[in-house]
Amino acid sequence: MPDHPLPTPEEVARYFDLCSNWGRWGPEDSAGTINLITPEKRRRAAALVRTGRAVSIAHPLNTVGGPGNWNPAQHWVRTGADFSVDYIGLLFHGYATTHIDALCHIFWQGQMYNGRPASEVTSLGARAGAVDAWKDGIVTRGVLLDIPRFRGTEYVTLDAPVRGWELEAAAEAQGTPLEPGDAVLVYSGRTAFYAANPGSTPGVQPSPGLHADTAPVLKRHDVALLGWDMMDARPSGYAIFDDPPRAGGPVHVLAIVFMGLPLLDNANLDPLAQACREEGRWEFLLTVAPLNVRGGTGSPVNPIALF
Amino acid sequence: MPDHPLPTPEEVARYFDLCSNWGRWGPEDSAGTINLITPEKRRRAAALVRTGRAVSIAHPLNTVGGPGNWNPAQHWVRTGADFSVDYIGLLFHGYATTHIDALCHIFWQGQMYNGRPASEVTSLGARAGAVDAWKDGIVTRGVLLDIPRFRGTEYVTLDAPVRGWELEAAAEAQGTPLEPGDAVLVYSGRTAFYAANPGSTPGVQPSPGLHADTAPVLKRHDVALLGWDMMDARPSGYAIFDDPPRAGGPVHVLAIVFMGLPLLDNANLDPLAQACREEGRWEFLLTVAPLNVRGGTGSPVNPIALF
Amino acid sequence: MPDHPLPTPEEVARYFDLCSNWGRWGPEDSAGTINLITPEKRRRAAALVRTGRAVSIAHPLNTVGGPGNWNPAQHWVRTGADFSVDYIGLLFHGYATTHIDALCHIFWQGQMYNGRPASEVTSLGARAGAVDAWKDGIVTRGVLLDIPRFRGTEYVTLDAPVRGWELEAAAEAQGTPLEPGDAVLVYSGRTAFYAANPGSTPGVQPSPGLHADTAPVLKRHDVALLGWDMMDARPSGYAIFDDPPRAGGPVHVLAIVFMGLPLLDNANLDPLAQACREEGRWEFLLTVAPLNVRGGTGSPVNPIALF
Amino acid sequence: MPDHPLPTPEEVARYFDLCSNWGRWGPEDSAGTINLITPEKRRRAAALVRTGRAVSIAHPLNTVGGPGNWNPAQHWVRTGADFSVDYIGLLFHGYATTHIDALCHIFWQGQMYNGRPASEVTSLGARAGAVDAWKDGIVTRGVLLDIPRFRGTEYVTLDAPVRGWELEAAAEAQGTPLEPGDAVLVYSGRTAFYAANPGSTPGVQPSPGLHADTAPVLKRHDVALLGWDMMDARPSGYAIFDDPPRAGGPVHVLAIVFMGLPLLDNANLDPLAQACREEGRWEFLLTVAPLNVRGGTGSPVNPIALF
Repeated sequence: MPDHPLPTPEEVARYFDLCSNWGRWGPEDSAGTINLITPEKRRRAAALVRTGRAVSIAHPLNTVGGPGNWNPAQHWVRTGADFSVDYIGLLFHGYATTHIDALCHIFWQGQMYNGRPASEVTSLGARAGAVDAWKDGIVTRGVLLDIPRFRGTEYVTLDAPVRGWELEAAAEAQGTPLEPGDAVLVYSGRTAFYAANPGSTPGVQPSPGLHADTAPVLKRHDVALLGWDMMDARPSGYAIFDDPPRAGGPVHVLAIVFMGLPLLDNANLDPLAQACREEGRWEFLLTVAPLNVRGGTGSPVNPIALF
Repeated sequence: MPDHPLPTPEEVARYFDLCSNWGRWGPEDSAGTINLITPEKRRRAAALVRTGRAVSIAHPLNTVGGPGNWNPAQHWVRTGADFSVDYIGLLFHGYATTHIDALCHIFWQGQMYNGRPASEVTSLGARAGAVDAWKDGIVTRGVLLDIPRFRGTEYVTLDAPVRGWELEAAAEAQGTPLEPGDAVLVYSGRTAFYAANPGSTPGVQPSPGLHADTAPVLKRHDVALLGWDMMDARPSGYAIFDDPPRAGGPVHVLAIVFMGLPLLDNANLDPLAQACREEGRWEFLLTVAPLNVRGGTGSPVNPIALF
Repeated sequence: MPDHPLPTPEEVARYFDLCSNWGRWGPEDSAGTINLITPEKRRRAAALVRTGRAVSIAHPLNTVGGPGNWNPAQHWVRTGADFSVDYIGLLFHGYATTHIDALCHIFWQGQMYNGRPASEVTSLGARAGAVDAWKDGIVTRGVLLDIPRFRGTEYVTLDAPVRGWELEAAAEAQGTPLEPGDAVLVYSGRTAFYAANPGSTPGVQPSPGLHADTAPVLKRHDVALLGWDMMDARPSGYAIFDDPPRAGGPVHVLAIVFMGLPLLDNANLDPLAQACREEGRWEFLLTVAPLNVRGGTGSPVNPIALF
Repeated sequence: MPDHPLPTPEEVARYFDLCSNWGRWGPEDSAGTINLITPEKRRRAAALVRTGRAVSIAHPLNTVGGPGNWNPAQHWVRTGADFSVDYIGLLFHGYATTHIDALCHIFWQGQMYNGRPASEVTSLGARAGAVDAWKDGIVTRGVLLDIPRFRGTEYVTLDAPVRGWELEAAAEAQGTPLEPGDAVLVYSGRTAFYAANPGSTPGVQPSPGLHADTAPVLKRHDVALLGWDMMDARPSGYAIFDDPPRAGGPVHVLAIVFMGLPLLDNANLDPLAQACREEGRWEFLLTVAPLNVRGGTGSPVNPIALF
């Protein structure tokens, strides 16, 4: 592995400008990098389908509270003479539910994506950056970056966050260089990590994951969506994000607030990594279909990869 | 329009046998007609994509209670210093939310799909026929049947339910004959109907929609999924379904219980019908991705059509 | 019945000042008229207990959506091998659930009780006027005013709202003149009214109930709490409240915002009126125990009268 | 402290019969020991009121998930131009919310109170033993047993569960011998215990609390309700309850299933113990008013003690 020095705090401070897409799609834009997915991009993504194998990257709804799931999904069933119904109640942000973050989910110094004031999110919902900007779905080329495979390990560890250069190197090694409008799914081996580290808890620092310097790489390649199983490595090692800890960590902030790039948190990437290895390719058609929640800060989703 | 006599009660009584797929995919099957969607079917469906236009067929979550929506979606937003989150609470069955019915949603004389006893659905969830049978999504060829266009009207009326022969005739007229594994979306002009009939309320009989004799047609063509904006015409005109009224109506019963064919209720088909007319074709790649709810009776969904 | 001319709009406009308790218990006060219930008041209220008969004035949770109940209570039960549990989800404001309104529930021209800005209520809860101000319960003398009995009718009608003078006259006629710190429960025969008027729906105007001029009477007697089955008569007949319709109506506004007097909406007063007639007295010990919801706008309650 | 040998497993096995009230109030009874609270009992309880001091024994709703609260209360607020409302969603059983257990909450070998089969609780609610049996409230003499004060300690420890003889001895020492129909509140110093034992978590064994032999004492005195901050000491030390662990522990089983005696779990007894010490008496009027939930397994409550 080549030598890749960590960026200095000064370099990280420049990421805010470097990553910014504010104004790029007009002052009223709420779709962010999803604008990069053109009809032509979708058409070419559909052309990737060869075998028709379909793989979900969502976890089952986790209805059992406990470490890492302190707002378990409420799922209740009622059954009568000739039918049954159920109720689902979700505070889906957290470390258990596979969900997409809308652009109004994270603020930085009182602002959200596109420079809109955080005050545009009220108890009545978000007037900008809401999830219904993506109501027609996100359909594009998906690329899985299999970091454990690239590293020859089983999972990403606390001492070695996933670095920006690695995203590019892994993509090249897999034969799937990143292209504008891609949905990049970074597999870090979360299941294996927590199985091997029972003292660690998702959402409790320190936690392994992506380094801040992945953000400018995503920006340089005009990636449209980032899915991940491990999320931000925290603490980040940069006071601007750690002292005090800011919601989500550097990639959450840089992606959502500055790039306008949605995150697919808690993606269930084990089955997909397995499928990619079996298929021998790491690109596919990906469909993410958020619920159409007016003014919502995100949505639970069940994204489907089609090979 | 040719003469198409209504089936007699005796003919309708034979639909139960005629439509049955019980045992077809083994005694443990919970996926029903989704088994008809093979990898090859998915591959060919993806090959239908030409322009990359994407259209959602889900309504926005309706959070305002009222006629037709007596269990409004609960959507609540909380916003703090550096992030916002929200809560979604859904009793999604009903006449407002676009949702998929799992095969455990409807019973007939104490049984559900595949002859399993209704008692397999308890307060702990369904042990058979649950929505998680489709956790890897439903990806197939979608065909919109535009009934108002076929009839030269704006919407289906109470006195003229959509008939089985019409499904076939409309499909032929559009150049999209039905094929095994298809997702058939029957557009009946619900929005226009209720706008023109303010005294009518979704879910309150009488309501326009599909006639019982559409069920054997869906079966004959091995359709995999039925989406609709208007659902069952009710009352059905057949005592066996009307006296007393059974949950859902004849197509609900015959599709879910006997065929094992999932329904996409309250589909928002206006934008899709418009897109089909503009594109000049009525077939597309359809992706339906239910939330992975273990033992669930269905799921809210945002199905995406890709042209 | 003596002649009681309706107040003029000018007279009603003076109610805001006339009813105001702003500043009376200090600028930080959130308890409002509940301050009038002293330990001595509670002691004397307990001394009213003679027979030990207990009567609830709460309706059962209504879990069935429909007219008047467009946000039905969600109640779900799960049962396992050795225990059962349930889930209750409530948007309790509305016309079905018996609940208490906190002082932050209603605003008037951007202000709430005690002149606090409405902006003190955010998605994080209320910083003033929240229901937890009453976390130690409301225990006082309850007085039922049986308006149908006073009028010799079965229920209050649309054309004859309950007037302020009537509250005093009914109290005198029953031998229970109003005293500071009392909880006054105004019985108007809601159940009988809606049974006799199937075209009327709770919460849909026009609706029978209390006239605006009851507010200054409640203020003059330093009443601490108002419970009612019918709530505000609406429209009120005064443009300042009707054009456009303001949340709740004049008594809601004058009581909650100006007096700081909590309301017990949708009280189930039929059984209590019956008990009072049987006991031959219209005063009792009343206990109202809101859930201790920090920053909450109210609470479902089950108030208990003890004779 | 006198010598009090622990009961043998054989003695504990006899508690089931010893504690049973099955059939005592008829085969259809769902109220259990609340039947012991007669109007005369309520009258005399009200006569205990001397100073009018009111104290809540409910905790604030805990909306923050974490150890001991794995199903946090959902509380969401929405605020508009002229009013605010909120939503409360509760799975109230657990170790955070102050709640009452209905008699259908616990089963023993397929049966619940009064010998009714557990199958009478379904997803539609309980047909026997439901909380609405107490819809008119529970109003009676409350007696706080201050165990830390009796022991001269700050809290009950893991090695010394509260014993049956202690309940009687503490009651005598306080001058409040137990009487039929009483609500007994056993204060064990939960807050101080968990503050001093950060490695312990409510609901995770081992946990301090009441010994199985308190059950026959409650039965002998015909206590009507048991409130407690610490609940069952677990493991109980008796294989019949521990191997495997049964829901709740021995007192939960013996009280709810066999005596038909409701439990007030997670009572907030610190302020009440303080008030008793200040008032110099340990008896008061107690009012517990469960929400009227048809078929419910319990209810969140805010019980009020009045001195």
